Amino acid sequence: MKSSLDVCLSPELLHLYEVKERTVVVVDIFRATSCMVTALAHGAACIKPFADLEECLEAVKEGFETSGERNGQKVDGFDRGNSPFEYMGESIKGKKIAFTTTNGTQAIEKSKQAKNLVIGSFLNLKSVSNVIGELGDPVLIVCAGWKGRVNLEDTLFAGALAENLLDHFTLEDDAALAAINLYRSAKTDMEGFLKNSSHVKRLARLNVVKDISFCLTADQYQVVPILRSGLLVS
Amino acid sequence: MKSSLDVCLSPELLHLYEVKERTVVVVDIFRATSCMVTALAHGAACIKPFADLEECLEAVKEGFETSGERNGQKVDGFDRGNSPFEYMGESIKGKKIAFTTTNGTQAIEKSKQAKNLVIGSFLNLKSVSNVIGELGDPVLIVCAGWKGRVNLEDTLFAGALAENLLDHFTLEDDAALAAINLYRSAKTDMEGFLKNSSHVKRLARLNVVKDISFCLTADQYQVVPILRSGLLVS
Repeated sequence: MKSSLDVCLSPELLHLYEVKERTVVVVDIFRATSCMVTALAHGAACIKPFADLEECLEAVKEGFETSGERNGQKVDGFDRGNSPFEYMGESIKGKKIAFTTTNGTQAIEKSKQAKNLVIGSFLNLKSVSNVIGELGDPVLIVCAGWKGRVNLEDTLFAGALAENLLDHFTLEDDAALAAINLYRSAKTDMEGFLKNSSHVKRLARLNVVKDISFCLTADQYQVVPILRSGLLVS
Repeated sequence: MKSSLDVCLSPELLHLYEVKERTVVVVDIFRATSCMVTALAHGAACIKPFADLEECLEAVKEGFETSGERNGQKVDGFDRGNSPFEYMGESIKGKKIAFTTTNGTQAIEKSKQAKNLVIGSFLNLKSVSNVIGELGDPVLIVCAGWKGRVNLEDTLFAGALAENLLDHFTLEDDAALAAINLYRSAKTDMEGFLKNSSHVKRLARLNVVKDISFCLTADQYQVVPILRSGLLVS
């Protein structure tokens, strides 16, 4: 019998879904989970996600570098912001990263009870599809959204992942059907599809347009971050 | 300056939206708001929505007839269930209807603080579009969903209404963009589009297939139910 695949369009809806017996995929395309995948692909040792900013800063004492954003902008005093281009090259190798963001790390915190928690992004789409298929457990894709509201880019990723897994999982949740349909409408030109979305307009104002293109590029990396003892590792 | 139009895909997300200064359109296509529109179009005097089943039964003392469902099925002892075909003909004329349902009347209860609260369905799509345009206030479309989860049919209606109002309102909410896109994909064959949806499968099991076709038929009625002193009237 096939396992089920559901899509939770906002962390505010997570209490409506069973989590503990599932593989949960957390997604925050612009830009937290795209950064996490990039960092581990470029040799970071591990990422410790924090919902709370102060706790994230405390991790410096344990040898972590601080990373992330609030309201889309780098936090004063942090080592890195929330652009995937900050997580490449020699400087990231072997680093332990303490990471906090407006939406993505909040969604991880809320999903911690999952049987398996993995990190998804377009950058590792095929790899995350393969890992989920191999695990075989029921799947819940948790879209980080924006401050609780549904957003388009995370929904599109949920649709892309659902499409990849369609032959091996059952889709009975209307949100999953909506996501897959939106992805099919958008997939030939995702940047065009998203140009009126709230987050793309917000990022354009912050002048990080090249991040948008990169975060929408499929299969740049093979790494699939998975949560083990509170740390995301590959 | 144009007013904004947002879409709240589930009552569980309503706290994220401003309600008090807005025209709120509550929608529960299968079948609460479709029944309400049908009842008032066929001459019912008014509808009193109840979130609570016991309170709904109490309204009998005030001369109301009882109507509605729990989990898609008529409540024992109620005068009417939740099929629009029960709200037609001579028997509905002049009646005061006390109405409670699993999702629709809960969404109304949560939206009561709106500047104006109107009831939307495909059956009165054009009329509700016109009334909203005339009111001119910012709009929030509240989809009743199913027990808090997002559903396709209410999202499609939100998209249809948003499309009608596109020239006169600004759409900045990603949920509104998602809804309008889904509606455009579905509008030439909504029944086909919805055939795998959770609620259509549930209703098919309950053997109320003809309700589905009827509830998806646009512009059968001109009535626009509006909440005045706790009563929905036309």
